[in-house]
Amino acid sequence: MQPPHRQGCEEVGDLGRSHHRETVRLVEVGRDLRDQLVGADPDAHRESSLPPHLTPERAAAMALSDDLYDLTPLVLENIERLGITDLIAIGGDDTLSYARTLDAAGVSLVAVPKTMDNDVQGTEYCIGFSSAITRAKELLNRQRTTLGSHERIGVFRIFGRDAGFTALYTAYVASARCVIPEVRYDLDRLAALLAADHRDNPSHYAIVITAEGAIWEGAVMADVGEADAFGHRHKANVGEALAAELKARTGIETLASELTYDLRSGEPDSLDSMVATTFANIAMDLIAEGGTGVMTAVRGGRYATAPLPPEGEGPRTVDVEAMYNVERFRPRYDGRLGEPMLLVSVV
Amino acid sequence: MQPPHRQGCEEVGDLGRSHHRETVRLVEVGRDLRDQLVGADPDAHRESSLPPHLTPERAAAMALSDDLYDLTPLVLENIERLGITDLIAIGGDDTLSYARTLDAAGVSLVAVPKTMDNDVQGTEYCIGFSSAITRAKELLNRQRTTLGSHERIGVFRIFGRDAGFTALYTAYVASARCVIPEVRYDLDRLAALLAADHRDNPSHYAIVITAEGAIWEGAVMADVGEADAFGHRHKANVGEALAAELKARTGIETLASELTYDLRSGEPDSLDSMVATTFANIAMDLIAEGGTGVMTAVRGGRYATAPLPPEGEGPRTVDVEAMYNVERFRPRYDGRLGEPMLLVSVV
Amino acid sequence: MQPPHRQGCEEVGDLGRSHHRETVRLVEVGRDLRDQLVGADPDAHRESSLPPHLTPERAAAMALSDDLYDLTPLVLENIERLGITDLIAIGGDDTLSYARTLDAAGVSLVAVPKTMDNDVQGTEYCIGFSSAITRAKELLNRQRTTLGSHERIGVFRIFGRDAGFTALYTAYVASARCVIPEVRYDLDRLAALLAADHRDNPSHYAIVITAEGAIWEGAVMADVGEADAFGHRHKANVGEALAAELKARTGIETLASELTYDLRSGEPDSLDSMVATTFANIAMDLIAEGGTGVMTAVRGGRYATAPLPPEGEGPRTVDVEAMYNVERFRPRYDGRLGEPMLLVSVV
Amino acid sequence: MQPPHRQGCEEVGDLGRSHHRETVRLVEVGRDLRDQLVGADPDAHRESSLPPHLTPERAAAMALSDDLYDLTPLVLENIERLGITDLIAIGGDDTLSYARTLDAAGVSLVAVPKTMDNDVQGTEYCIGFSSAITRAKELLNRQRTTLGSHERIGVFRIFGRDAGFTALYTAYVASARCVIPEVRYDLDRLAALLAADHRDNPSHYAIVITAEGAIWEGAVMADVGEADAFGHRHKANVGEALAAELKARTGIETLASELTYDLRSGEPDSLDSMVATTFANIAMDLIAEGGTGVMTAVRGGRYATAPLPPEGEGPRTVDVEAMYNVERFRPRYDGRLGEPMLLVSVV
Repeated sequence: MQPPHRQGCEEVGDLGRSHHRETVRLVEVGRDLRDQLVGADPDAHRESSLPPHLTPERAAAMALSDDLYDLTPLVLENIERLGITDLIAIGGDDTLSYARTLDAAGVSLVAVPKTMDNDVQGTEYCIGFSSAITRAKELLNRQRTTLGSHERIGVFRIFGRDAGFTALYTAYVASARCVIPEVRYDLDRLAALLAADHRDNPSHYAIVITAEGAIWEGAVMADVGEADAFGHRHKANVGEALAAELKARTGIETLASELTYDLRSGEPDSLDSMVATTFANIAMDLIAEGGTGVMTAVRGGRYATAPLPPEGEGPRTVDVEAMYNVERFRPRYDGRLGEPMLLVSVV
Repeated sequence: MQPPHRQGCEEVGDLGRSHHRETVRLVEVGRDLRDQLVGADPDAHRESSLPPHLTPERAAAMALSDDLYDLTPLVLENIERLGITDLIAIGGDDTLSYARTLDAAGVSLVAVPKTMDNDVQGTEYCIGFSSAITRAKELLNRQRTTLGSHERIGVFRIFGRDAGFTALYTAYVASARCVIPEVRYDLDRLAALLAADHRDNPSHYAIVITAEGAIWEGAVMADVGEADAFGHRHKANVGEALAAELKARTGIETLASELTYDLRSGEPDSLDSMVATTFANIAMDLIAEGGTGVMTAVRGGRYATAPLPPEGEGPRTVDVEAMYNVERFRPRYDGRLGEPMLLVSVV
Repeated sequence: MQPPHRQGCEEVGDLGRSHHRETVRLVEVGRDLRDQLVGADPDAHRESSLPPHLTPERAAAMALSDDLYDLTPLVLENIERLGITDLIAIGGDDTLSYARTLDAAGVSLVAVPKTMDNDVQGTEYCIGFSSAITRAKELLNRQRTTLGSHERIGVFRIFGRDAGFTALYTAYVASARCVIPEVRYDLDRLAALLAADHRDNPSHYAIVITAEGAIWEGAVMADVGEADAFGHRHKANVGEALAAELKARTGIETLASELTYDLRSGEPDSLDSMVATTFANIAMDLIAEGGTGVMTAVRGGRYATAPLPPEGEGPRTVDVEAMYNVERFRPRYDGRLGEPMLLVSVV
Repeated sequence: MQPPHRQGCEEVGDLGRSHHRETVRLVEVGRDLRDQLVGADPDAHRESSLPPHLTPERAAAMALSDDLYDLTPLVLENIERLGITDLIAIGGDDTLSYARTLDAAGVSLVAVPKTMDNDVQGTEYCIGFSSAITRAKELLNRQRTTLGSHERIGVFRIFGRDAGFTALYTAYVASARCVIPEVRYDLDRLAALLAADHRDNPSHYAIVITAEGAIWEGAVMADVGEADAFGHRHKANVGEALAAELKARTGIETLASELTYDLRSGEPDSLDSMVATTFANIAMDLIAEGGTGVMTAVRGGRYATAPLPPEGEGPRTVDVEAMYNVERFRPRYDGRLGEPMLLVSVV
């Protein structure tokens, strides 16, 4: 196989026009084609979501249990029928987990980690992380004047059910306090600290960022609340719950705010674009050299490869001792000399 | 009194330096001074929030009932002690209502309407409205790709407990469906319409904007829900409630999103800056001419004055017949010829 | 003809799906079709730009002189062949001028004014103006810290060769000084004023906005400079020229900056979206009622119609007496009561 | 000396409140104090810029020649008088060069590299670089629609007189062609390539980024042009000159645009904030440990220290072979495996 022509990710037109055109073919997967293929979660389909073209016999052959189907044989057929010789799988937990299945089934495949949670095992960086932090910091800082003029404690919820990277790094660049899923915390001590911040800040406000999955000692994180007056059950929102607790303990008005809705869209920042472009080209290099079953990565501050994330290990989490100051509810700022640019080494 | 020097709002330095300097004095109200003055809501203080310097006898003299105090006499003293000859009161409902009290007490005063809700009686425009719509539209449009890639119905909650201006005008400029507090609506019909939007849209998503106070026929808007697993009571969030109802009726995944947190901060757009600067200069003109007890306004598309909003009339609300298409859950787009730039005439 | 279905401009999908679908057909004009049609400036083609499909005989019949052709007969044929019964012409000077030609030739046509210069005769507003001012203000304000840290006079060039609306309104909302094409100005007086601003400003900087076409008494605005070391002739840039003159006169460092490149792109603000949507719907209303040969407009702060801009009158210009303070190189801020929202009445 | 309290850069209030307060004192240098101190370029003052308080005798003692003075003795006195025991010098070429002088004179000092040019010897990153690229990419991409609708070649000038990092990295993330000061280039070949891009791009436009100091073979970069009709001499603007040359060679309309004015202001992105905060804390660590005469740095993708940039070596420049594809006027995209996150290793 000839080496593919080198270029940036957006240079698709140029790619298509090159004399290596034969190595690239665009497969547009509109909704109709998708219905004829398999859909999301190919190895765990309910009966109700089986593709309409599947015969009952064929389905039965792929049943794992009464109402669970693994359509991987179908996926492998489709890959062959579409003439896909090499696959680049881009995504987070779900995508990379299924990439492992395809790799085991013999598909030639390179994975690229992409999730704002930045919690994929084996890499210090996943596409989307830097832009999420850039945006979160901007949104948070924009609310400082409002918090100051109402003299409130601002509680900002950010995604991160199992890992606190987004909460921690937003706190790092915005100089804010934060709580993360990796550490059960003492709510009274946090409340006291924020009350002191509020008192000492010349504009009389304070800020804490909470990851979705960060809970305090004694609390029970519930996925389902009681039915409300609308007749619905709501998921408990940890930001609103924390804001209520802080108000009860400090007597200071609190405001629960979200850093979620607006982070999933918009322009990537330069680091994100740089890593995405570089991962793409490394993936092309790997494929050209016949590599398969690996993931592009950043390790020790350098571009590297890593194995596909192993099954059952769960997401990467924050190294609390190295990165989090439990006493002060802050990122640790000391002892950074020798560490990689994004502060934590995965080697 | 000499006419004040003309300028834009930000030209404070220039103002101070001018030969009319004597007409302007900056009174910085830091937290300490504020504690010595009165605080918010001067005519409805609880005992716990009385300023610490107030003697019990003085307080008793201003008691309205057991635990309610009207500190207006104190406010009038402070205004006199600070040597304030003319007051410009800028704000929404609460501010303008208390401006009425001061006006009745003989304070020379011009009011300027400022609230993103744009619901002050007597004016077509309040400072903040245009920037809120600009920002809301930008945030909403940014989420279209996410909604499309997950093929969801997006439910965007925006402020507006009594009046639907922000919901309606965001819908107008973003070409979206909306529900407003002024009209109880048929949830089944809305669900059917959104399901059709979702089906027909090439990217298979749909959008509806709900004002905070918009509720459907048969629903009971509750301020307090049941205690959840955290032991808290949550206010019912109409966006999340509507999203749940729509999912139940259409079977389509929904996403409840907020257009609130980020609208209260950031740079004003040009219309907002233009109106704010012009209102400020009209207020200066009025004061120079000895005017008092009036509010700057836009009426029939032109700068005007209006009486202070009368007591007990509540906020201005959307003229449903002129502006809202009840059948299609949309702003009305026809018959705009002859109407003022912001579409509704207050004359 | 049936009235078209009402909606916002972006609701194209909905438009297509409606039962009035037959009234709307999308004509995509890619580059190839455009080559087969006529191209820009149909009434003033050079021989070199004649469409390739045109026979020499046909071209000769449309020649105005040796090397100038009026292809209007061809345009009329194309309109008929494409089955276009009603045309909505959106644009500034050039577009509206040719709209007049088509109108005279009997084409049913409604015009919509769109130019950031906001200088079309007969309307107070052209699409694009508000967004340009919003963006210009943001860019200008962002440079205040840099100007202050270097203690410079900032000279901001903005478009406007004949009319100073963009310079004037940016100055209005940013509280800056400005010079406009409508007034030849005294450079020494401007320099003295800016030196005083620079001295009195606590951060020691000053700002002036110059329209492209604003020149001082005694200057000669040249379109072509001398050849430089690259062997090229450059257009004189009025911003750089003014910056050099101010430095020579005040001894203060100046910085010439541009408010042009970035204004022609990006998201419209809410006023712009509102007017664009409303103009579009008024145009649809007019067509449905059989109106032709008119332009949508804002007059006296209200949506209106106006005649197509008359030939030979040139662009609308700033009413200097009403809007510009010649002494202080500033917009006038006084006497706005009774004026339309955008301050100048075209009635 | 006690170790300073750990925190983020913005946590100044917290710093001041800590029990280590005695280690931190804020010296506000307003304009008046600055005049009494020394001003910029302390080792190369002209007579006209000597501080007013300096006696002729004292000045004479510090004269290097007829009209050149080295005020370093004065600076050392001021440092002592202000009680500054440790200095953190933040800046680019000029600042770091004078830091070397102070270091040689025995001042305890840690340097932090900060320049959008990213061209300081000994480090892969200088504060400001990432935000500049993020902003440049955003501005450039925003102009794609305008370039496409006018079918032009866009020439974007960006700073970088000696080093092409900003041009190269903007090109990397925006997938554009670029020319840099490190390589004299063949203008005809560039023109041919851009004409081909323009032809093949479905929207018929093309883009090239030129660093300020990038010039083609045969061109003479002039600092001073001929006097123009205003009587001024203008610096040759390489962007406008290149645009003119490209138009002459290709016959395609070109647009010269700037990526300079708007890059020097606005919010930092997350990488910039992260590095700035980390550099600040490393500097505090170094001082606490008694380190002096070193610079914080990123080397091989990790936080490190480096010697102060040596005299006379000039700025760091792009490693052309590793980073630039001379044939294609593009960054090199291949062979990135093993390289640090920002692609070039300084070790």
